[in-house]
Amino acid sequence: MSGLGKRIQTQAGQIAADIQRRKKPSMQLPVRSLQNVRYDPGKGFFALGKKRKARTLTVSTVKTFAQTLKMIATCKGILDTQEIATKREMYYISKNWGEARFLEQDESDAIMEDIEAFFLVNREQLGFVPEEKGGDVAGRLMIKDLDSNTGKTLRIDCTKFGSGAYSIPISVEELGFETKARFILAIETAGMFQRLVKHRFWETHNCILISLGGVPTRACRRFIRRLGEDCHLPVYAFVDGDPYGYSNIYRTLKVGSGNAAHINEFFCVPRATFLGVTPQDIEDYQLPTHPLKEVDIKRAKDALKNDPFIKSHPAWQKAFQKILEMGVRAEQQAFAAHGLNHVLEVYLPEKLKRPERFLP
Amino acid sequence: MSGLGKRIQTQAGQIAADIQRRKKPSMQLPVRSLQNVRYDPGKGFFALGKKRKARTLTVSTVKTFAQTLKMIATCKGILDTQEIATKREMYYISKNWGEARFLEQDESDAIMEDIEAFFLVNREQLGFVPEEKGGDVAGRLMIKDLDSNTGKTLRIDCTKFGSGAYSIPISVEELGFETKARFILAIETAGMFQRLVKHRFWETHNCILISLGGVPTRACRRFIRRLGEDCHLPVYAFVDGDPYGYSNIYRTLKVGSGNAAHINEFFCVPRATFLGVTPQDIEDYQLPTHPLKEVDIKRAKDALKNDPFIKSHPAWQKAFQKILEMGVRAEQQAFAAHGLNHVLEVYLPEKLKRPERFLP
Repeated sequence: MSGLGKRIQTQAGQIAADIQRRKKPSMQLPVRSLQNVRYDPGKGFFALGKKRKARTLTVSTVKTFAQTLKMIATCKGILDTQEIATKREMYYISKNWGEARFLEQDESDAIMEDIEAFFLVNREQLGFVPEEKGGDVAGRLMIKDLDSNTGKTLRIDCTKFGSGAYSIPISVEELGFETKARFILAIETAGMFQRLVKHRFWETHNCILISLGGVPTRACRRFIRRLGEDCHLPVYAFVDGDPYGYSNIYRTLKVGSGNAAHINEFFCVPRATFLGVTPQDIEDYQLPTHPLKEVDIKRAKDALKNDPFIKSHPAWQKAFQKILEMGVRAEQQAFAAHGLNHVLEVYLPEKLKRPERFLP
Repeated sequence: MSGLGKRIQTQAGQIAADIQRRKKPSMQLPVRSLQNVRYDPGKGFFALGKKRKARTLTVSTVKTFAQTLKMIATCKGILDTQEIATKREMYYISKNWGEARFLEQDESDAIMEDIEAFFLVNREQLGFVPEEKGGDVAGRLMIKDLDSNTGKTLRIDCTKFGSGAYSIPISVEELGFETKARFILAIETAGMFQRLVKHRFWETHNCILISLGGVPTRACRRFIRRLGEDCHLPVYAFVDGDPYGYSNIYRTLKVGSGNAAHINEFFCVPRATFLGVTPQDIEDYQLPTHPLKEVDIKRAKDALKNDPFIKSHPAWQKAFQKILEMGVRAEQQAFAAHGLNHVLEVYLPEKLKRPERFLP
């Protein structure tokens, strides 16, 4: 049995013992909200604070309590059989729990997050896999995976996909890596990724290209985290020059998100830095721009006021202030105005030579 | 120069000749709307009708006319240099066209669709690539692609990705295929795809698994179309049992969409059939269901009344009527209520033995 399996058994044993002694069983769960989050630049991610709530068996909590125990038991079954399940499937499994069945997936998701926080694990460690896939990978990387049939190691060479790419699986815990690349370039859009793949940017710059496809999924963030750490590679983010790119895509990649602080430890990429598009780039490269929308302005002001990550980095505060003053945003495709390959022939090589111009 | 390059030159030459003879230059474009679409079950896709509109150079059309010519010239440049561009990049390229620049991407997209319809090609043939990537592939398939560096053929073995997958590139025209698989299984959700990959369903059933990730992208549809045709493989769709799955995901995969009829010929998969989840499956397998939402009911009624594909297939009419009567929908994950692997151990094998229960 896995270490986690044993911990589940211990906790369940205590609850059973309480019940047998006719004592009300109780579980101590961390409070999961922004008020119970702190950002420690040393650690590099949003971490859970110390606030706890008790879930004690009473008349009013009996259903939630039963659901929590049933779900913990299901998790143990999945762990013991090395099975996988999605959150949606977990919801459907409950349809056989009689009165304790969930009526909406929101309910089962909330209890799954409680269980993650309770055991201080991520749900991937409990055998759950996300609904959405990860990103795509191309370049100087050999991925090691297990052939589940023969038990032998598969070596997947990410330089050998032609115009295609390696699609990151939804669970990446078992993957191993070998690389002599110098850095990882994490790219917001599939179109830009394809351009860099077509022109074999990974070869000329000895790197690994990863397509985020917007806000990166958990699997994608975990993949970059593990790859960067195992192979001691810097991670450079190349995303749109707008508040969404800065605070949703990049901030989530680097330190995680506020409402999932109990798992950020596993999914953040503290070693990531922001290559561009910075507000300074928009000026330096005379990019075509669009006016900031209302929602961009609101997002930027929110970030300056409330985001512990932005607030702890003066360089980011300046960047947000600058983009608000400029009143415009620019996408990574905007370099096309200077020629389709300006981005890979001029912009990226120039920026890569001047990492002091990156944002933290 | 490519055949298409020559056609562009010929058309441009006629316009130039008209101008030199002081005649008003004009382009004949097909009308792109549902009123100009017909469904021919023999051909198997929504096709453009015969209605044409003329775009003649006048005071009021001078800007659109100039933009169309500039974009055709850009396309020719991209073709001649074997470059790629996204629609977004095309929009940015126009920023150097002075007065003829586009203010919004909607404008440049509309003109690109005119150009596709004018030359009766898809924009991929003009060197354009979609913004979004295709789907994922695993199973008994060898993909042949070109190593753009060495010019040698790369052979990509889709049985060798472990828990990962081959990510379909955004342009698939150059790919070649080798396979001894019996069929292609096109799967709606990434989670279900991952379950079938984990349990090597492609091995036990000698097939190719493709993850659609919701409504399939153009690249994904084109990939399935080309693979199915080149290798003479049937394509079975496994999607949710609801009006969205039937008429948006499956119908788009099989015959294309109404507002892009000029390119459906390239992107439809007429050989696709619908394995499930059918309304009958919901009853036969006693799946947990959710009530149809207002939008589901509207979509089903619309399909029965207006969709030429549904209207031409009595079996689909019955299916839509049945789901409306049942008043419920069921997702492909719903099989989890009978055990996580019921879907691959019971449902899929049973259905695959009874193709007469598929929908057309």
